[in-house]
Amino acid sequence: MIRFDNDYVEGAHERILKRIVETNEEQTPGYGLDEYCEKARTYIKKACDVENADIHFLVGGTQTNSTTIASVLRPHQGVVAASTGHIAVHETGAIEATGHKVLTLPSDDGKIKAEQVKELYDAHWNDDVHEHTVQPGMVYISHPTENGTTYSKSELEELSKVCRECGLPLFMDGARLGYGLASKDGDLSLADIARLCDVFYIGGTKIGALFGEALVIINDDLKKDFRYLIKQKGGLLAKGRLLGIQFESLFEDGLYYEISRHAVEMAMMIREAFVKKGVSLRYDSKTNQQFPILPNDVLMKLGEKYSFSFWEKDDATHSVVRFCTSWATKREHVEMLIEDIKELESESVNDMLT
Amino acid sequence: MIRFDNDYVEGAHERILKRIVETNEEQTPGYGLDEYCEKARTYIKKACDVENADIHFLVGGTQTNSTTIASVLRPHQGVVAASTGHIAVHETGAIEATGHKVLTLPSDDGKIKAEQVKELYDAHWNDDVHEHTVQPGMVYISHPTENGTTYSKSELEELSKVCRECGLPLFMDGARLGYGLASKDGDLSLADIARLCDVFYIGGTKIGALFGEALVIINDDLKKDFRYLIKQKGGLLAKGRLLGIQFESLFEDGLYYEISRHAVEMAMMIREAFVKKGVSLRYDSKTNQQFPILPNDVLMKLGEKYSFSFWEKDDATHSVVRFCTSWATKREHVEMLIEDIKELESESVNDMLT
Amino acid sequence: MIRFDNDYVEGAHERILKRIVETNEEQTPGYGLDEYCEKARTYIKKACDVENADIHFLVGGTQTNSTTIASVLRPHQGVVAASTGHIAVHETGAIEATGHKVLTLPSDDGKIKAEQVKELYDAHWNDDVHEHTVQPGMVYISHPTENGTTYSKSELEELSKVCRECGLPLFMDGARLGYGLASKDGDLSLADIARLCDVFYIGGTKIGALFGEALVIINDDLKKDFRYLIKQKGGLLAKGRLLGIQFESLFEDGLYYEISRHAVEMAMMIREAFVKKGVSLRYDSKTNQQFPILPNDVLMKLGEKYSFSFWEKDDATHSVVRFCTSWATKREHVEMLIEDIKELESESVNDMLT
Amino acid sequence: MIRFDNDYVEGAHERILKRIVETNEEQTPGYGLDEYCEKARTYIKKACDVENADIHFLVGGTQTNSTTIASVLRPHQGVVAASTGHIAVHETGAIEATGHKVLTLPSDDGKIKAEQVKELYDAHWNDDVHEHTVQPGMVYISHPTENGTTYSKSELEELSKVCRECGLPLFMDGARLGYGLASKDGDLSLADIARLCDVFYIGGTKIGALFGEALVIINDDLKKDFRYLIKQKGGLLAKGRLLGIQFESLFEDGLYYEISRHAVEMAMMIREAFVKKGVSLRYDSKTNQQFPILPNDVLMKLGEKYSFSFWEKDDATHSVVRFCTSWATKREHVEMLIEDIKELESESVNDMLT
Repeated sequence: MIRFDNDYVEGAHERILKRIVETNEEQTPGYGLDEYCEKARTYIKKACDVENADIHFLVGGTQTNSTTIASVLRPHQGVVAASTGHIAVHETGAIEATGHKVLTLPSDDGKIKAEQVKELYDAHWNDDVHEHTVQPGMVYISHPTENGTTYSKSELEELSKVCRECGLPLFMDGARLGYGLASKDGDLSLADIARLCDVFYIGGTKIGALFGEALVIINDDLKKDFRYLIKQKGGLLAKGRLLGIQFESLFEDGLYYEISRHAVEMAMMIREAFVKKGVSLRYDSKTNQQFPILPNDVLMKLGEKYSFSFWEKDDATHSVVRFCTSWATKREHVEMLIEDIKELESESVNDMLT
Repeated sequence: MIRFDNDYVEGAHERILKRIVETNEEQTPGYGLDEYCEKARTYIKKACDVENADIHFLVGGTQTNSTTIASVLRPHQGVVAASTGHIAVHETGAIEATGHKVLTLPSDDGKIKAEQVKELYDAHWNDDVHEHTVQPGMVYISHPTENGTTYSKSELEELSKVCRECGLPLFMDGARLGYGLASKDGDLSLADIARLCDVFYIGGTKIGALFGEALVIINDDLKKDFRYLIKQKGGLLAKGRLLGIQFESLFEDGLYYEISRHAVEMAMMIREAFVKKGVSLRYDSKTNQQFPILPNDVLMKLGEKYSFSFWEKDDATHSVVRFCTSWATKREHVEMLIEDIKELESESVNDMLT
Repeated sequence: MIRFDNDYVEGAHERILKRIVETNEEQTPGYGLDEYCEKARTYIKKACDVENADIHFLVGGTQTNSTTIASVLRPHQGVVAASTGHIAVHETGAIEATGHKVLTLPSDDGKIKAEQVKELYDAHWNDDVHEHTVQPGMVYISHPTENGTTYSKSELEELSKVCRECGLPLFMDGARLGYGLASKDGDLSLADIARLCDVFYIGGTKIGALFGEALVIINDDLKKDFRYLIKQKGGLLAKGRLLGIQFESLFEDGLYYEISRHAVEMAMMIREAFVKKGVSLRYDSKTNQQFPILPNDVLMKLGEKYSFSFWEKDDATHSVVRFCTSWATKREHVEMLIEDIKELESESVNDMLT
Repeated sequence: MIRFDNDYVEGAHERILKRIVETNEEQTPGYGLDEYCEKARTYIKKACDVENADIHFLVGGTQTNSTTIASVLRPHQGVVAASTGHIAVHETGAIEATGHKVLTLPSDDGKIKAEQVKELYDAHWNDDVHEHTVQPGMVYISHPTENGTTYSKSELEELSKVCRECGLPLFMDGARLGYGLASKDGDLSLADIARLCDVFYIGGTKIGALFGEALVIINDDLKKDFRYLIKQKGGLLAKGRLLGIQFESLFEDGLYYEISRHAVEMAMMIREAFVKKGVSLRYDSKTNQQFPILPNDVLMKLGEKYSFSFWEKDDATHSVVRFCTSWATKREHVEMLIEDIKELESESVNDMLT
């Protein structure tokens, strides 16, 4: 079985493992106060072209999202997000467990628009009894989104502008940030993101690390006492240096970008194979996740050799599925998949397959 | 200004006030352990035709909803509700503040259907990664709904059946329950509700009391330690007898039903006046709330003499507004309003007014 | 049975009831936005000698405490309180339910000292791993305390000074505030309290009202969006005018002080009777609660005629009990009790009774 | 600088690292559903001599504690713990953040007694107004405690018996469990612990692993839906196999016990050196943490070469400090320390040093 079902099926980039092994016997202070973390922070600040960011390393995405959001909001405030956002659908109510509502905006492709935020904000404040409703307190976006789509620089600029006008801190979930930066269509750099967001994180778990997310807090108002929050929410790793070592490896000389580009290149090859075959794609993704709509019998067949994940039913005989590549995806596996895509035939179904 | 903007603009029914005054100097134990509360419980059990219910008196609706829901759910569970439900939109995130997500089902008229609940339940349990999503843990409905609509006996039976099959306790918010019972279309009795729901409350604040809601817990599994929850959530009134006296007055000889009928009769007169005038109604309400769609200039004019509440924009020149009657609504006020409805003219707008 | 077990056994002062009855048919806006609330606010501001306070009316004490504390603290902060404080022991974990730890300081008489706060604050910030512990975020005191004791002006000044130096808002629970103001020993006025505290409440439930507490927010930083919090925590009374009418009655011409003085006078008579009899008092209370230490057989006897509450075991044969007076305590009941105290004899126990 | 300040200064046991490297390119399902986790579960069940336990792997201790406790308790319940317990003092209020109070029992050495639990339980249920106080809902102990002390088999049997009589699930925090099992004084086996506790965890972070704790749920009532809780609280590691591989390595052939014994042996050598020198020990610890009471000038001197952690002030001129050994402590470092202890002299202080 060759796995394309998600982007965390393998371990870590070999350089990271090597460094963990090499430093294993060193004695360091705990909880992220070691020099590896410090070096990683320096590299990341440079990559973001900022001098004063606070950078914290957490273990996973759900933890990073709920800790950050709980730190920013007051009890009566909620976080605005796409209806498809990870915090809205796939974190078992982690945000609500910290007391806050996720205020969802309808979205088909995973993105939200500046106008939507403005409308929600205005609707709240124009409501005579606004104190009977949850006050929007910040905005969450994911980039790339859960659907593989990305924000363009102008889209993020508009969103950022509206958020600042409304006094709503903008938080970007970058679980797959590298894959967004590597997208051919994309025109957003890390420095742009640091300039336009108040807080965001650079995902490691899905991009080369064993685990770990680097949270970058740009807005001074959001920095205070953040380490308390990490500890309280269970995210302060005792051997914090493990996170430092990983992000140091990823950012000291561009490894993060390099391996991200590989994943996207592999994904684009798969995309092209489906397109050539006449298969429709549910979302126009230029990143590491691809969402073909395929006849169910074809999926049965493909599923004997490859794993991928079921996304949603399309109609009685078709489903949307997700193929993920990652930094670790082997080119020969992709080539094998492409050959198999070429050969696909739908027997039982009258279909779009050429 | 004659107020039709909501159903809590006046004080309490005179019989209630009289009893509060008469008993004022009596000394009773606190926190709902007095004999007035005990008597009220007896009357309510009789009205519900149950012997073993636990009955608690709380001060207000938001409090009753959040206390009940927090008591029933485990941390990873959410409460299923209509997208229009009070807990979903008008309680400042009170449910989320106790750690739980409101899982909304789309609804235009405020009601949810048995099939919708079943689908959501099945979708959850058929999801491969269901533990990454909030588990449905109970179902909340309001009757009458926030839109004035009501469940028929057969609708509630179906909903109850599905809930029991799925192991989801069914909770009815009865802030306006009397007005539902008094609806001409309605075929649900208190005994039906007690038979079909696991827990529900009988609203007093909007029906004759100064304040107060009587929570009726039918399902034995939901009874344990409930008084702790009331105390923790700030709802255990020190002079609990005030609640007992009010519900005793409302239920000892049918006052609750009688004053509910009056409110509904007044609302039906207003409804009819609008209908005769050719005005469309946003919802088909046979209870104490009416939602005409009116030209904005007409609303300006009406607003000089009457208060009502803005509900939503209908189009560029029309709005939906809400007229509420209550147990205290004066017939002469309604007659005056009806006369004024008859005279309505829309000057600036080409309209449906006859 | 004559009840001295608490200070909420009767209804409300007759002037309050009269006003509620007189205004019963008036139509007013809900949720505390009516003119009765506005008038009450004006009277209270005058009584506190402040111009800019925000004043909110809530229904009960636990609700007021947990709403206020939840509004002030960030997630990693706790509230400092005496180990005997109401929030620490008698609110079913209401503070913890909003996510916050109560950081207790040892206290025998219910009071805390400025030095204790300073020490706790310093201990926190001098701890190398302070982010692994709960950060003190505000200070809660009750005045009078749960033990009937009170803060002197100089004690409150010192406490206030330390709190301001440490950046810890000072919150006074005034559930029995009137009885503290009426204490002969006391030298604190409402204006002093408003000058020295950041936020405090004036208790109505235990002093003349049917229910209700008036929260006074002095510190501008604590004012923002407070109505959202009240709504979310279930404390926003629909017929808010009921609270306005009650506090208007209590503060328009000094009724609050007058009835508080009565309660304290009655308590002092009881105290004197015990002292004359040679009975020890557990706390040196000059307010409406008295805590005699009595032989258990004597308590059995007294208990046939009077209710009082058990406080704690003193030794194998003695207990501490609490006698409460209130604004409603009848002089003839107190005189009867005093006669009975004079006659007390402990048969089975060798005792201090003269 | 040789570090004795805690037991997480190094990385992981080399066998663990080797396995992580060897398996790095394998593709496995995420979230603990892989076969490494499955094997580790099998080994642990065998070690505990149980067949039906549910075993979950989490990343860290605070996370494991708060997730477990939040899963077990209803909202009005608290967890009973020693006043010195990790959850009471060093988790930044993580338990309170999930809504629950920690009900502390006084403890000097970190342990609690069966009688103390019984007394607290009885005091709660004998209280007339018990619903105004937090209900004890479970009991938390740490073994070894934060002070290095351990429960004997008979102590744990008594505690377990009382807990079962009171219906209070018993939860053991085993962050340093191996060091307790390896203690010469100890007579508790893993099988005893599994028999006497309802739920406990086997710490990996401090004993050979890079990170990770294995939670063992014995009591069927506590098993339901636990994975939801892990996800919600941010503890479900994407590459869950990392945890499986580590615990497989630790438990396939007794490595966990072996490395634990080493740490305890090293600690006993340090203990003996202090005792020989006439130094008092704050706690009678037979595990990997030692707490000598030393003159401050001596500590200054020792601190030039070794790191250890400040525990508490003893008097004006002495402090209690903590020396930790671990699975990774080098014998030559301990021998060097012992030599230096022999040479200690207190210049400025008249002291117990021989």
